Amino acid sequence: METAESTEGLSLLLVEMAVILVAAKLAGHTSVKLGQPAILGELLAGVLLGTMSQFLLPGELYGLLISSTSSDSHLAILGELGILLLLFRVGLESQPRDLLEVGGTSLLVATAGVLLPLGLGIGVCSLFANDYTPISEPWQMHLFVGATMAATSVGVTANVLTEMNRLHSRESRIILGAAVVDDILGLMLLAIVGGVVVNSGNLGEAGLGKIVATIGLSALAFTVIGTLVGLWIARHYLTALKTINGAGAYGIGLFVFCIVFAATAEFAGLAPLIGAFLAGLVVDDAQDNNLDVSAATAESQLAPLTAILAPIFFVLMGMQVELGSILNPSIGLYILAIVATAFMGKFVVGFLVPGPISSKGFVGAGMIPRGEVGLIFAAVGRTTGIIGEQTFSALVLMVIVTTLAAPPLLKYFERGLKS
Amino acid sequence: METAESTEGLSLLLVEMAVILVAAKLAGHTSVKLGQPAILGELLAGVLLGTMSQFLLPGELYGLLISSTSSDSHLAILGELGILLLLFRVGLESQPRDLLEVGGTSLLVATAGVLLPLGLGIGVCSLFANDYTPISEPWQMHLFVGATMAATSVGVTANVLTEMNRLHSRESRIILGAAVVDDILGLMLLAIVGGVVVNSGNLGEAGLGKIVATIGLSALAFTVIGTLVGLWIARHYLTALKTINGAGAYGIGLFVFCIVFAATAEFAGLAPLIGAFLAGLVVDDAQDNNLDVSAATAESQLAPLTAILAPIFFVLMGMQVELGSILNPSIGLYILAIVATAFMGKFVVGFLVPGPISSKGFVGAGMIPRGEVGLIFAAVGRTTGIIGEQTFSALVLMVIVTTLAAPPLLKYFERGLKS
Repeated sequence: METAESTEGLSLLLVEMAVILVAAKLAGHTSVKLGQPAILGELLAGVLLGTMSQFLLPGELYGLLISSTSSDSHLAILGELGILLLLFRVGLESQPRDLLEVGGTSLLVATAGVLLPLGLGIGVCSLFANDYTPISEPWQMHLFVGATMAATSVGVTANVLTEMNRLHSRESRIILGAAVVDDILGLMLLAIVGGVVVNSGNLGEAGLGKIVATIGLSALAFTVIGTLVGLWIARHYLTALKTINGAGAYGIGLFVFCIVFAATAEFAGLAPLIGAFLAGLVVDDAQDNNLDVSAATAESQLAPLTAILAPIFFVLMGMQVELGSILNPSIGLYILAIVATAFMGKFVVGFLVPGPISSKGFVGAGMIPRGEVGLIFAAVGRTTGIIGEQTFSALVLMVIVTTLAAPPLLKYFERGLKS
Repeated sequence: METAESTEGLSLLLVEMAVILVAAKLAGHTSVKLGQPAILGELLAGVLLGTMSQFLLPGELYGLLISSTSSDSHLAILGELGILLLLFRVGLESQPRDLLEVGGTSLLVATAGVLLPLGLGIGVCSLFANDYTPISEPWQMHLFVGATMAATSVGVTANVLTEMNRLHSRESRIILGAAVVDDILGLMLLAIVGGVVVNSGNLGEAGLGKIVATIGLSALAFTVIGTLVGLWIARHYLTALKTINGAGAYGIGLFVFCIVFAATAEFAGLAPLIGAFLAGLVVDDAQDNNLDVSAATAESQLAPLTAILAPIFFVLMGMQVELGSILNPSIGLYILAIVATAFMGKFVVGFLVPGPISSKGFVGAGMIPRGEVGLIFAAVGRTTGIIGEQTFSALVLMVIVTTLAAPPLLKYFERGLKS
């Protein structure tokens, strides 16, 4: 039958989704029972699924599975939508005024949290790396590794903070503010380093300055103009939305607002996540001031969607770990150094925060996780031949360890915080 | 920047989703204001979007847009998930016992509704078609066109019945029962015709019999065994599900149950839609008898997901119409004949239903719409070279006209029904 080809993909996708969701929910449930955040279970479920599939599935089926975790697969896109909705919810639950209040501290934490890992990454890579590729010069690889270590994953932290009901504490606001700034800085750095490395042959001093200026300007412009224009649009948009009939129109309207903001952010050179977060901030403000719709109502319309899609993202992140190649003992020291400096480079930054030790530790822990940006960067470096295989494995393990370390650490320091 | 390539796809998808959802909701809203079902507006919004894009967008961008409506694009997959959830909801709201009650009538309507369009399609095609392809023999094309005209789209009708709050009337139960049987028969026919046409060179009498037996048996086995086993599993599964913690666990569990059933149906050679519908029936029964969870609660967990995803399916269906090639006057009579016989071939079948004229008309109207199965079949015929371009256009227009005709007709005959 000829239709088999076109429809088989759907069955396969459905089965994969079912397995991923069941694994995510069972592991998440167990994780919560053990006093840990659900996301820890979801990530480990991914690692387990990926490793088991590698050893248990026939080679052909395993190849099919791995290709379905690639960034442009249907599953990955579903996970991306989930993480956008998650950041939108975090935005809805954050108060813009509260973020501005801790703005100074956030900016300090973010800047230090980008520069320190960048420097440490360059240092560690130049000391330990021995897998230089023929097409890249050593300094290019060092710079690339440093940049990969710079951007915090706001998605992981935001999820843990939401689960802890901690979004409104001062420390959480510092972390979220810093993560946004840090993500903006990190992505600019990524764009610049990418540009420098790729164009290093034909790029003068002036060209570098131009790249930096262009990217920096568009990121800044989006954040400032997008927020102001967004606030104005949101008021009129949400008012119009309430007059539309039809099942779930309000929820769909919010979803559209979120994805349009996310796409706009990406066109401006930022991560779509930043756009979704800003969209949530803006909608929350418009709802509070102009409509008798509470953030809770808005959330409840999108919560079931988020609950199904977001776990897919975290499980897929776990599945991308190849334990086999990472546990190669010959590169143990290199990997250990990368992971340790990535960990410390963000954690110590928390100690710039004024206040008791638990506040410092909580913020430091919240800054640790690297996520999708790090993974994307590692994949790009590998594909373009700028970094070697060992470095790639080290960076992937770095993303995983930092992501796994954050939730229990946050939990640990949370006990000392004022509730 | 090298990351642009991998992420640009997401922005584009987000923008397309936003445009589609906004168009769907505005058109649906207008449609409801005019006393028509929302789905009519959603389909026409798709036709309008597709036609406008063709004339207004630059060629390159239009090509990109059209490729994103193809059956394995991210958008199409999202729409497919939406239609699965829609059928799951229809199953949840249907009572299995009620379906069995009207089983005889459904079976009669379904069988006649497959045989009549099949015969009419073969006749019309042999009379009017003049675009025979070099690789197919005339009888193959006739058979293919007949088969394409056989399967009702339960998705369209179910959506209209849900919007009318008419799911529980006797007529609706006859339609849904018939649509399920009819879809099973239609898909078997599709599989058989596909097999016969493709293998006609090396297929003896025995081979044909074997194909028919295999496909028929697996479809029947899935429907009977799947329902019985499904009932048993659903009871234990739903009981276990209620003990799991975590956001939206019950909704996710239902979603998993739905997609696993859909995938199983596809592996058995049936449409995934049938599996989703049976899953809904089975869950509804298990909930009623064993748990203090009402169908309404289960639905409310998945309704926001359905509300966002299902319109994508209907808008994409509309977008696939190429008005330009269809309105070619030289093939007017052929197209008219295909559309008219497709329409009448299902409508007159309603008159087999005992009862007043409005009951007969309502059932007949509900059987008219062809949908995804017809479109898939037309695309397969075109790709494999069994049917020519004119026939392809005729079949696509047939799907659209029958889908557009059903909602107002159902609305018209509904006035005469007992409420």
